[in-house]
Amino acid sequence: MNDFIFQNTTRVYFGKNQLSHLPEELSRWGSRVLLVYGGGSIKKTGLYTRVMAVLKPAGIQVWELPGVEPNPRHTTVNRGAALCREENIQALLAVGGGSCIDCAKAIAAAACCGGDVWDLVEGKAPVSQALAVIAMPTLASTGSEMDKSCVISNLETAEKKGLSSELLRPRAAFLDPTNTLTVGPFQTACGGFDIMTHFLELNYFTKAQKYPMLQGVIESVLHTVAQDLPVVLAQPDNYAARADLLWAASWALNSFCGSGQRQAASCHSLEHELSARYDLTHGLGLAILFPRWMEYLLARDKTVAGDFARFGTAVLDCPPAADPEAGAKAAIEALKKFLYEALGLKSSLSACGIDGSCFEEMARAACHGGVIDGYRPLTVQDAEAIYRMCL
Amino acid sequence: MNDFIFQNTTRVYFGKNQLSHLPEELSRWGSRVLLVYGGGSIKKTGLYTRVMAVLKPAGIQVWELPGVEPNPRHTTVNRGAALCREENIQALLAVGGGSCIDCAKAIAAAACCGGDVWDLVEGKAPVSQALAVIAMPTLASTGSEMDKSCVISNLETAEKKGLSSELLRPRAAFLDPTNTLTVGPFQTACGGFDIMTHFLELNYFTKAQKYPMLQGVIESVLHTVAQDLPVVLAQPDNYAARADLLWAASWALNSFCGSGQRQAASCHSLEHELSARYDLTHGLGLAILFPRWMEYLLARDKTVAGDFARFGTAVLDCPPAADPEAGAKAAIEALKKFLYEALGLKSSLSACGIDGSCFEEMARAACHGGVIDGYRPLTVQDAEAIYRMCL
Repeated sequence: MNDFIFQNTTRVYFGKNQLSHLPEELSRWGSRVLLVYGGGSIKKTGLYTRVMAVLKPAGIQVWELPGVEPNPRHTTVNRGAALCREENIQALLAVGGGSCIDCAKAIAAAACCGGDVWDLVEGKAPVSQALAVIAMPTLASTGSEMDKSCVISNLETAEKKGLSSELLRPRAAFLDPTNTLTVGPFQTACGGFDIMTHFLELNYFTKAQKYPMLQGVIESVLHTVAQDLPVVLAQPDNYAARADLLWAASWALNSFCGSGQRQAASCHSLEHELSARYDLTHGLGLAILFPRWMEYLLARDKTVAGDFARFGTAVLDCPPAADPEAGAKAAIEALKKFLYEALGLKSSLSACGIDGSCFEEMARAACHGGVIDGYRPLTVQDAEAIYRMCL
Repeated sequence: MNDFIFQNTTRVYFGKNQLSHLPEELSRWGSRVLLVYGGGSIKKTGLYTRVMAVLKPAGIQVWELPGVEPNPRHTTVNRGAALCREENIQALLAVGGGSCIDCAKAIAAAACCGGDVWDLVEGKAPVSQALAVIAMPTLASTGSEMDKSCVISNLETAEKKGLSSELLRPRAAFLDPTNTLTVGPFQTACGGFDIMTHFLELNYFTKAQKYPMLQGVIESVLHTVAQDLPVVLAQPDNYAARADLLWAASWALNSFCGSGQRQAASCHSLEHELSARYDLTHGLGLAILFPRWMEYLLARDKTVAGDFARFGTAVLDCPPAADPEAGAKAAIEALKKFLYEALGLKSSLSACGIDGSCFEEMARAACHGGVIDGYRPLTVQDAEAIYRMCL
């Protein structure tokens, strides 16, 4: 096993009766707060009102940055950072999906650094300081609430890039499963598979030596997510299942299940090109890509068969197979059935109106001029072949 | 599910090549360090020399408190605290078993508070400040390295009591499996079952509603520990299995697998009376008590059968049983076989030279004049009956 260093300092308030702790938590960082949120669903669900109702009596002054985009733009970040500097904001409260939390993290850094956030993203200036971020996710998906990274889009350069610093890790996360009960079936399914791929790409299908204890732990969480997703599609207000999904989302990126390996997330790299070009929902792109990526690897490299077969039996309840290759094939079929039947997601890019005209260019972009150094290395040719399998 | 608040700030350096980070980590807290250790095994294994070899060139001044007892005494703590005040110590480095780490935590608090540590233990004075503690466990067992509590013994009053504060949580833990390779079979087995009971008593057999995702995670870790213990007894220098055990020990008390329930640890409460009176090794006392506690509960309360049966199949590989009660009985038999055959631990108190003369008194002491409010409440009569079953 590889050596690893682990630390995750985020304080988690989990459950349905934690909102009363919000003023006390925010007060650790200051009384001038910027509320960052998206398209307004938090107003429809009443969450906005509930949050304001605890902040106002506690003497916390709130400024607002509404309208954060699903892929937060660097211009929005710069607008938020300017507001923070003008109004002497001390902390950011992000209420929404991963995009809101990512946007708040980038603002937290940009507010302290003065210039354009894109300089930070490109490494032209270091993240040397950041305002405190408090995260309140309303969707079980990205895990940004306990993670130190964020992803920001630049429409001018058509780029989508990450920014990462220990300073950006939320100081606290309020994980209330009731805030996710109104998430519709499509976003629930996409978010759920996003959770699964974080585990699968970063810590489960790993090129490094595996850590048996953590493999078992990851399988338990993945199995729970796979069991719970159809449950919440049928019963959107099933609190216990929503709670599993919300905590699983955080676990996928909070490094509890990491063990030192650093590898590229192959399907995430391929998917970013899809969502950047075609505005495809990230989890849907992953759901189309992932089984094809497995098929592609299995066809050329039988050493993946054992891992894939184990995934099938441990996570998707496949019966034990005669040999690893048969088990791997059964796992891929079970995953397709899970994604395209149980979760009802579209099974091909053509079904999403995407043709193959840009695949070559996308493959080059996904590989950044080299290979995607994930579970198995992917060249530009590999990437393009996998895109074609998704048509 | 209960709501819960989670935070664990300890920075973990895991693996065999982390010692070089020690000076940098200690330097965060100061350059005047008290090294706390036990009976000198760290000198025999060479760990003492290796630690000193990285500290000296980094300009870190080291004072020493050797000879910490297996159950650290409040007088030792007071001695260490006085030394810290005299020498202006800024941080404590505990190298050894859970006792050393516990002793260092208590010193860290007592050094800042001035008086007798027993006043802190008894709540007569608050823990308002503490020096930094860095933990380097040499045994996979107590999990003290990521936990905020410590247990201190007072020989004058014949008491063994806990002290708990977020300030006592180690700032960093160096978990190097190679430091545990020389632990003998008896301590390995006792430490391993201590790990298992932490999970079982605090987070697995719970009176509160269970959290399915975490139940599965705990089962994975328990299964790994149960698989690995016989492996390391046969191959003491099996790095991978030692690594599992060491990280599992931390997981058992780092709250990753907690979900808000707070309950007494029944067998730990019963066991403390044994180790306090008869100087029995903690893990051995637990190994004798635990299966009897299960038998006692099952005989009077069939509602435990389902949980016990699930434990048997998920952790000890028992085949599925016809009904929960049969499954529970099979689980208890499998646990006995595991403890008394595979791990070779003694199976009764009489085999340890302990008779029943003090059981009534011990039962009263274990219940602190009330009931032990664990998975199922235990009265003084219950406690005494369980002790008798262990003869």
